[in-house]
Amino acid sequence: MKTLKVDLAKHSYPIFVGEGLIAGAGAVLAKCGFDAPPIVITNNTVLQLHGKSLLRSLQKSFGPVEVISIGDGERYKNHETLLRIYRQMFRAHADRRSWVLAFGGGVVGDIAGFAAATFMRGIPFAMVPTTLLAQVDSSIGGKVGINVPEGKNLVGAFHQPAAVLSDTAVLRTLPERELASGLYEVLKCGAIRSKELLQYLERRLPCILGCDADSMRHIVVLAARIKAEVVAADEKESGLRMILNFGHTIGHALEAATDYRKFKHGEAVAWGMIAAIAYGRELGLMAQGESEWLIRLIHSVGNLPSLGGISFEKAWSALVRDKKFRAGDIRMIFLRRPGNAEIRSRVDAASLRTFLKRFLAAKHG
Amino acid sequence: MKTLKVDLAKHSYPIFVGEGLIAGAGAVLAKCGFDAPPIVITNNTVLQLHGKSLLRSLQKSFGPVEVISIGDGERYKNHETLLRIYRQMFRAHADRRSWVLAFGGGVVGDIAGFAAATFMRGIPFAMVPTTLLAQVDSSIGGKVGINVPEGKNLVGAFHQPAAVLSDTAVLRTLPERELASGLYEVLKCGAIRSKELLQYLERRLPCILGCDADSMRHIVVLAARIKAEVVAADEKESGLRMILNFGHTIGHALEAATDYRKFKHGEAVAWGMIAAIAYGRELGLMAQGESEWLIRLIHSVGNLPSLGGISFEKAWSALVRDKKFRAGDIRMIFLRRPGNAEIRSRVDAASLRTFLKRFLAAKHG
Repeated sequence: MKTLKVDLAKHSYPIFVGEGLIAGAGAVLAKCGFDAPPIVITNNTVLQLHGKSLLRSLQKSFGPVEVISIGDGERYKNHETLLRIYRQMFRAHADRRSWVLAFGGGVVGDIAGFAAATFMRGIPFAMVPTTLLAQVDSSIGGKVGINVPEGKNLVGAFHQPAAVLSDTAVLRTLPERELASGLYEVLKCGAIRSKELLQYLERRLPCILGCDADSMRHIVVLAARIKAEVVAADEKESGLRMILNFGHTIGHALEAATDYRKFKHGEAVAWGMIAAIAYGRELGLMAQGESEWLIRLIHSVGNLPSLGGISFEKAWSALVRDKKFRAGDIRMIFLRRPGNAEIRSRVDAASLRTFLKRFLAAKHG
Repeated sequence: MKTLKVDLAKHSYPIFVGEGLIAGAGAVLAKCGFDAPPIVITNNTVLQLHGKSLLRSLQKSFGPVEVISIGDGERYKNHETLLRIYRQMFRAHADRRSWVLAFGGGVVGDIAGFAAATFMRGIPFAMVPTTLLAQVDSSIGGKVGINVPEGKNLVGAFHQPAAVLSDTAVLRTLPERELASGLYEVLKCGAIRSKELLQYLERRLPCILGCDADSMRHIVVLAARIKAEVVAADEKESGLRMILNFGHTIGHALEAATDYRKFKHGEAVAWGMIAAIAYGRELGLMAQGESEWLIRLIHSVGNLPSLGGISFEKAWSALVRDKKFRAGDIRMIFLRRPGNAEIRSRVDAASLRTFLKRFLAAKHG
């Protein structure tokens, strides 16, 4: 078991990464200071696959555990589910001294974390993320929240977990597309901060796609450490933390333009990274050889859903919906070299528009 | 205009108290650093009585202002209203750089503050409280939230406003019972921290009930300062802040036992204070003369709804619903002298039960 620390002064917390951690989760969490049974928030898919092992371990350390199971999928991350969670917590006699354990992927982590942030004005929570994306991304940094009809994650809070347990063994049960989606975020961490991680991905891709235990632990540790470092330097996203949005500006626009149905989040980010690299190349920010190498590496992870049929106007209007765009202050994250990101403000809207139009119409791959 | 400061390190904020402040609210808020028009959250009653003056002033300083009006009353402080507020904010193109102005009593302040705390993970807000209770109590300390079917204020956050403007002129439009309800909270502030405030209340009660400008400003400043000092010493209620709950333990039980219909909050607190004083007297904590004087002073504010018909069992079960009670760790706030409160733990449940039964059955006043 490898231990990382997210360094946030009085909100600092440990991330434990290892193969088979779930079976010993209760003991690890008890050592983190929890001394009562948690309210476990999860979904049925995760519960069926890994629930038995986790619950047995929790019961051993804390006694009988309450489980709240929500629907599986982004569409359940809403107000209705949140209200149901609160009410089930009250029915289970939760109070100010209770705590929540989020057991699942990003959706579970976000809504369970937000429930914990707001239940009786805030109670502690811990996370056992069960997707690669959640292990390297959404479980780190304390962003919690829900979707509203106007958009994703628009209601929420910053609420740091007290501990995160990432069991890399559960990644073996992920559908192929879900695994690839997480790998794009791992790749993003390398792209902005670590050429070494990119080279490791290139070298070990077959092992990683086969979920080899050592490789998985290695990439989860490296990617989680990068995210933890960036978050520690800028908890509330006033500066550096923005580099984590590499690939997300155009990625989000692609998701919105396809009503969040065509792409998994990581896939949209993959296309967003390819676009940002290509546009950065056009602006003369990055050398041709390196940009081509990185785009090839992204494509080698899996087959990205094509960009065919996406309305340019819909994508562009999703991009400019942001007030900062309307005010003319467009910021984007570019790479100077693989492993080296740069925040640029005052990106030229007309030139970006022309680029995006061309990018969506081009043949890729 | 009198300025107080709530001293909370980087969350510190000013409270402005004065006659007719609303007409100049825009300029005051502009000086607090706001530079865009706010999203004003209010209700129709307040809007009709004082909206014109506030909106004119805001428009002069910031340009056109968006207004979101919610239903008037505690029953609107729920999830449904909150979701409607978020959606209207998005329709008004609010974003991370927007801010909220809560314009109304406690209900508006609580839900508008919670909307601000969670909209895009938190935006700033300011308050123009329009009831005495809100000016001396709910606008100070950053507790924001909503009700759920299981109880009041059970979902929420700590989110400090950036500024509070208390215009004592608006108190003249309050219904008599609402004014008295606020006066009980003022009296509570005196009871726990300032014999001087109690004596002022006693001396000037006719002027205060007539909403004399000087007297109102004086009591709002004194009571708000007491609350601000206590909150500054203990923002998250781990110790001292509990003394603000004087009268609230039994008060809450009375509200719950009558389904929040019979008493205004301040009235229930008034009965709760009378009970805590009487019980403290029985325990030998307070001298007879002083306790009788204080109970008389409470009764002199107005006619409290009687305790007749309240089910003792319902009140007791509301009291013991709290896990701390079940665990045997009953804490209550008592007075040693008028102006001097004490937190006592391990109150004897059997003795409290006997006392409450007798108290509900007794003739009062």
